[in-house]
Amino acid sequence: MTASNDLLAQLADSAPRHLEELIQWLRIPSVSSDSSRVSEVKQAATWVADKLECAGLSVEILPTEGHPMVYAESPRIDGAPVVLVYGHYDVQPVEPLDEWVNGPFEPTLRDGNLYARGATDDKGQVLTHVQSVCDWLASGQPLPLQVKFLIEGEEEVGSENLERMLPELGEKLACDCVVISDSGQYADGQPAITYGLRGIATYELTIDGPSQDLHSGSFGGAVMNPAIALCQLLGSMVDEHGRVQLPGYYDKVRELHTDEREQWAGLPQNDPEFASAIGVEQLFGEKGYTTDERRWARPTFDVNGLTSGHQGEGVKTIIPASAKAKFSFRLVPDQDPKEVTSAVRQHLENHCPPGVRWNLEADHGAPGMLAATDSRFVHAANRAIESAFGVLPVLIREGGSIPIVTRFQEVLGCDCLLLGWGLSDDNAHSPNEKFRVDDYHRGIRASAILWDEIGKLN
Amino acid sequence: MTASNDLLAQLADSAPRHLEELIQWLRIPSVSSDSSRVSEVKQAATWVADKLECAGLSVEILPTEGHPMVYAESPRIDGAPVVLVYGHYDVQPVEPLDEWVNGPFEPTLRDGNLYARGATDDKGQVLTHVQSVCDWLASGQPLPLQVKFLIEGEEEVGSENLERMLPELGEKLACDCVVISDSGQYADGQPAITYGLRGIATYELTIDGPSQDLHSGSFGGAVMNPAIALCQLLGSMVDEHGRVQLPGYYDKVRELHTDEREQWAGLPQNDPEFASAIGVEQLFGEKGYTTDERRWARPTFDVNGLTSGHQGEGVKTIIPASAKAKFSFRLVPDQDPKEVTSAVRQHLENHCPPGVRWNLEADHGAPGMLAATDSRFVHAANRAIESAFGVLPVLIREGGSIPIVTRFQEVLGCDCLLLGWGLSDDNAHSPNEKFRVDDYHRGIRASAILWDEIGKLN
Repeated sequence: MTASNDLLAQLADSAPRHLEELIQWLRIPSVSSDSSRVSEVKQAATWVADKLECAGLSVEILPTEGHPMVYAESPRIDGAPVVLVYGHYDVQPVEPLDEWVNGPFEPTLRDGNLYARGATDDKGQVLTHVQSVCDWLASGQPLPLQVKFLIEGEEEVGSENLERMLPELGEKLACDCVVISDSGQYADGQPAITYGLRGIATYELTIDGPSQDLHSGSFGGAVMNPAIALCQLLGSMVDEHGRVQLPGYYDKVRELHTDEREQWAGLPQNDPEFASAIGVEQLFGEKGYTTDERRWARPTFDVNGLTSGHQGEGVKTIIPASAKAKFSFRLVPDQDPKEVTSAVRQHLENHCPPGVRWNLEADHGAPGMLAATDSRFVHAANRAIESAFGVLPVLIREGGSIPIVTRFQEVLGCDCLLLGWGLSDDNAHSPNEKFRVDDYHRGIRASAILWDEIGKLN
Repeated sequence: MTASNDLLAQLADSAPRHLEELIQWLRIPSVSSDSSRVSEVKQAATWVADKLECAGLSVEILPTEGHPMVYAESPRIDGAPVVLVYGHYDVQPVEPLDEWVNGPFEPTLRDGNLYARGATDDKGQVLTHVQSVCDWLASGQPLPLQVKFLIEGEEEVGSENLERMLPELGEKLACDCVVISDSGQYADGQPAITYGLRGIATYELTIDGPSQDLHSGSFGGAVMNPAIALCQLLGSMVDEHGRVQLPGYYDKVRELHTDEREQWAGLPQNDPEFASAIGVEQLFGEKGYTTDERRWARPTFDVNGLTSGHQGEGVKTIIPASAKAKFSFRLVPDQDPKEVTSAVRQHLENHCPPGVRWNLEADHGAPGMLAATDSRFVHAANRAIESAFGVLPVLIREGGSIPIVTRFQEVLGCDCLLLGWGLSDDNAHSPNEKFRVDDYHRGIRASAILWDEIGKLN
């Protein structure tokens, strides 16, 4: 069989159920970084495991030292390709809560969008593949390939358990190609295949000073202020153009190919519109690169959070006992997160003022990734996406990180397809995260056709 | 009559009641900066008004646009000096709450100290004068001078209402000398008369960037990060020795007299002990000045609080939509807080990076103050303190600010006596604020004798 008109018609008929099921899944607050949410995270795993099992796949819940992974596979088809769909059911924290129009775990339809934490990142996107496979099996026809699923619960906290367990899972996960939908279209109406991701390195820095908050009148001028030390240490991490000042930071950065720069120059970039959409008067960043080049292929430094001293109402003139920051770097091939950590330590060692102590915790790190741009899987995906979205995808990179992708390439020796159904204004990691309902349904259709196209490859 | 043995014996007999009354007053959570505490602040005013009224003073509660002031006066004595005791019944916020051993409003005796917010700053200290006057009146003897009290409820938020109302209150408050106990002894066992205070200027700075938090993968490299901008703007406010980098900041700073430096050099300063007491490995500050010189006579910059982005558990890789700081300067004569505000605005104007917007709120400001060191009131206080503490006080300045003192000097044209009964480790403005019970009782005794000594002046 092919992804015939029959199956496409069946998908259209099932659209209300597809949406209802996504809403069910989004109601489960599976925030992996929140230790008070362990049981909800598990519940989200069980939900998708049940869904796959009911459709006839063979399902296992794989325990880890943290949150469990859901593994499932359709029957093996002799001689046919094997595809592994990777995704995650865990979600980002939801703060600041008061900026959400609806509760983050009360999925709400508004203007053709479904609003909820995890709508696009990644429950909504990974569910497109789950739905296409389940519906294919429900149609009574055999799939023209074997599809495996690995849906984990720790992507938003660094996938460390999966990364550690990956070698021993190699045989189970063996495949010709990993398919991941955890990225975006290039623009509204312009789908994309993503062939590059940035890496990441995240940190928590604490600056400790006096054993407790001090009166800034009695003690000001006598001791180093930890909040000032923190500001100076972080502020000096980048220059006035956002160029990172750590020793050796750019040494291993792979420069952009002329081909890539030319191809990207053809994309409909519009800086003023981009700035306006996110509410800033002007964009900012390293000189000599376009906005997409800076977002996709240049490494960065960002402060993610600051905490120190008096944060409530009114005045409290203290020298705070300590100051804390969460910060992160986005890395590009061939930067090594471990070397970045060493450089951060060196920076702190060199610049921390006397009278305070620093403590750095390196949370997680992963290198950037580049995939082939002209593989048979890319060609199959081109056809599937064109058929479902009515337009050929463009080839782009993405600024985000899916740390495990590089490890899949290394351990499984497979190709890699990143097919993003989301939009850049979907507010992933932000309040009012959303997924356009039409893109969810188009994603399910593209996925169904993809199985057909990949099945034809052999 | 004099502060005879009879009265001193009576004070000793009343010590348990004196302590019990302070505990009652400390139980009232009169945090003036907390808008949810308006009624408790009022309750603290009523408590001390009742106490003074019961002792026979003529009492008025003076309403303001904010928290009320308590005014009281003993009968006028023809030809005798008039003294105004100024103090405040409002207290600092109590955060971080989890660092308090006992609740901040559950006064607790431990190791000879009374722990509670406001114990030393300023309920415990101002109450020494209230008790001495009340007990003197209870003894049936007339006071040898007229004592007026002005106990306000907005000292910790800048005394703006009192400052504005001071000219119209000039006649009521007319006096020969203002007496204030809101500072400290120089060291344990070494009482002091404080003849100088630093001024203050406090601010809240907000840096706004994108209209909401952004995914640092998709947007990192494209926009200015408000938390980085904040760090750079604050970090560049001082150099590596803590010297403030604002334009013109030191232009009006009165240099220390050689006399002062020599006299202070004779004080038992011990940097390693001072550092150890507050839990730092080494002290820090402007080159060329001793620790006391930096604390008392040099202007400073301190960050009092930082807030931005993700502050909870775990990793959240965002570019925060905004970042905020509370910061303050301690000023010395003849710096002008308004000029400092202009210089801060100039600094922000010059250094704020593109792509973010800054907003500065100037909360309150007051210049530094210097009083006479050889007036008849200083000599009277010398005798009273020597008698109660067994040792002559030393002449010092203080790094803290009592903004209204300069205004008293200007508007009332009076002398000024700052008699501090506290200790430097009393944790004013910090968790576990305390007041040594013995110092409270010695303060009451010194106050009683002071009335006698001042009564003899005419």
